[in-house]
Amino acid sequence: MPADSPGYLRIATEEAFAPPEILAAWREMLDSGAVDDPGFRSLWGFYLSSDAERPRSLRERLVDLGERRLADMDATGIDQQVISLTAPGPQIFDADRGSAMAALANDQLAEACRRHPGRLHGLTAIAPQDPKRAAEEIERGARSLGFKGVIINSHTRDEYLDDPKFWPVLEAAEALDTPVYLHPNTPSRGLIGPMLAAGLDGAIFGFGVETGLHLLRMIVAGVFDRFPGLRLVVGHLGEALPFWAARLDYMHAATVRSRRYPQLRELQARPSDYLRRNVWVTTSGMAWAPAIMFTRDVLGGDRVMYAMDYPYQYVAAEVTAQDELPLAPADKKAFFQTNAERVFRL
Amino acid sequence: MPADSPGYLRIATEEAFAPPEILAAWREMLDSGAVDDPGFRSLWGFYLSSDAERPRSLRERLVDLGERRLADMDATGIDQQVISLTAPGPQIFDADRGSAMAALANDQLAEACRRHPGRLHGLTAIAPQDPKRAAEEIERGARSLGFKGVIINSHTRDEYLDDPKFWPVLEAAEALDTPVYLHPNTPSRGLIGPMLAAGLDGAIFGFGVETGLHLLRMIVAGVFDRFPGLRLVVGHLGEALPFWAARLDYMHAATVRSRRYPQLRELQARPSDYLRRNVWVTTSGMAWAPAIMFTRDVLGGDRVMYAMDYPYQYVAAEVTAQDELPLAPADKKAFFQTNAERVFRL
Repeated sequence: MPADSPGYLRIATEEAFAPPEILAAWREMLDSGAVDDPGFRSLWGFYLSSDAERPRSLRERLVDLGERRLADMDATGIDQQVISLTAPGPQIFDADRGSAMAALANDQLAEACRRHPGRLHGLTAIAPQDPKRAAEEIERGARSLGFKGVIINSHTRDEYLDDPKFWPVLEAAEALDTPVYLHPNTPSRGLIGPMLAAGLDGAIFGFGVETGLHLLRMIVAGVFDRFPGLRLVVGHLGEALPFWAARLDYMHAATVRSRRYPQLRELQARPSDYLRRNVWVTTSGMAWAPAIMFTRDVLGGDRVMYAMDYPYQYVAAEVTAQDELPLAPADKKAFFQTNAERVFRL
Repeated sequence: MPADSPGYLRIATEEAFAPPEILAAWREMLDSGAVDDPGFRSLWGFYLSSDAERPRSLRERLVDLGERRLADMDATGIDQQVISLTAPGPQIFDADRGSAMAALANDQLAEACRRHPGRLHGLTAIAPQDPKRAAEEIERGARSLGFKGVIINSHTRDEYLDDPKFWPVLEAAEALDTPVYLHPNTPSRGLIGPMLAAGLDGAIFGFGVETGLHLLRMIVAGVFDRFPGLRLVVGHLGEALPFWAARLDYMHAATVRSRRYPQLRELQARPSDYLRRNVWVTTSGMAWAPAIMFTRDVLGGDRVMYAMDYPYQYVAAEVTAQDELPLAPADKKAFFQTNAERVFRL
């Protein structure tokens, strides 16, 4: 480490890229009306067409896996990125095209990681809409491409991972002991209505509701009883589930006891136990000491790790803010470096 | 105060009742299929028909505004209740019937408060679906019935209070300087889909999403710029908006700058400023020290106050847990007593 090193590596764990081919395919689908997902139309209809500064900068930075990205990392003191295909990735395509696009993205990302060893790591993109091929791609990513986990962008065409049809995907991740990053997506069709109407469907609120609900659905459906070795990573400091933790436990028990829903059954543990056992969280988009310290209190310091959410939240001051968290040196090293090394086996 | 007094009164601020006439009307609407709100059908379809212990106990306790309630208060050390008609109150009826049911509930509640001075306080139920009559009822509640605020149960037939049609309601509350308790409701039709499918539409998750979204909609629509004196009270420790506070500020500014939504305009302050200026929160259903202390840190100790959510969460151990919060005596008195006295002018 150089003389001005803070004493830890900064490993950013929820960092995005997009092959130009996928952005072009999305644009073509939007223009032709071939996709009617309201969240996708709202988000990428804007980001792929607007001339405002933010969308222009994002389009330029997303496609770069080389010098520009490394220069941005250097400028903000980021030693390593754990990179994934940006949301919704292949999940918006039909199954065949989605599987092909996942493979294309994975090949490009693997090549970039090979070119920049020690700086860039990759997660495997998949198209869960073809669970069998998705499971095979997870295996190719882990065994052949050197990837460190799997990226899934919340709902796939309005379906959630607690649906047994997706179990082959979770089974493969568990068998390979490779973590699944449950990344935000725009809310599914049945959830987005009053958020979209108010301009709140995106990063400001909709992402968090969608992804928090997805994680909670997996928990209460018993996914982690069925796949106890499954490891999940979730952004936004756990999508507010740590805030709700005690209430989730109380109301889950009360609802199960009252036999209100046939689909809500007793679990082997309380909902919050799964948060502390199967889930790790990152600070993507939540560079704010009060919420970070609270989440560390609730989940434990070994469960919370740094993310920048490059290029969406490329803000040097947020790195500084997290350098200044009131943590002992060993805890800060865990937060910025060793938790990520352990979870992703870097 | 008696010798074993903790040094403060315990004032519970989100406590529910229901006239038998309203429960009967709901049951009749459910049985006849006259109401198709999916959240209402899920919640009250269960609570009005199930023989499980929880719904039976709730039905019995909700209708009592006398000896049983007072005995329950005594048994858990509650000195005073701030009582409101349980959700969704009159908001599920058509406008005329809703207005009549609100008046009926208010008359019953006012009578009980007169019978038990110093123990029971009331909030004014309204039917916002007739904004003009709702405004008149707010005035009747404040001026003639001695009520201390207004209760609104989130969406009214899928509509939210940022809709200008409801401004007469907010205008009346501001003019009378009477606080509006924005109480949870089941999620509106456009929001409930994937929560209902998983058994998560109720207290465990849906209430919080619905009500947090409602508050955020009011903030970003500029309601508090238009009605700067409007005072809101929100349960569940602010419906997770304190957890998201920094992100709301960052993403609101970024979204406004990018001109993505015509309806998202610059505000006079940051979203979190309105939380600290126009909003007070209660601990209803969140009797958990980590979240309470976090929310006090974010919003300030003068903004967080005690609630039990009787009879839904009639749990003596939760009172004890909050008696044991790590707060100085003056702060604990503010939490249990004086914040409520100030906000509701008791």
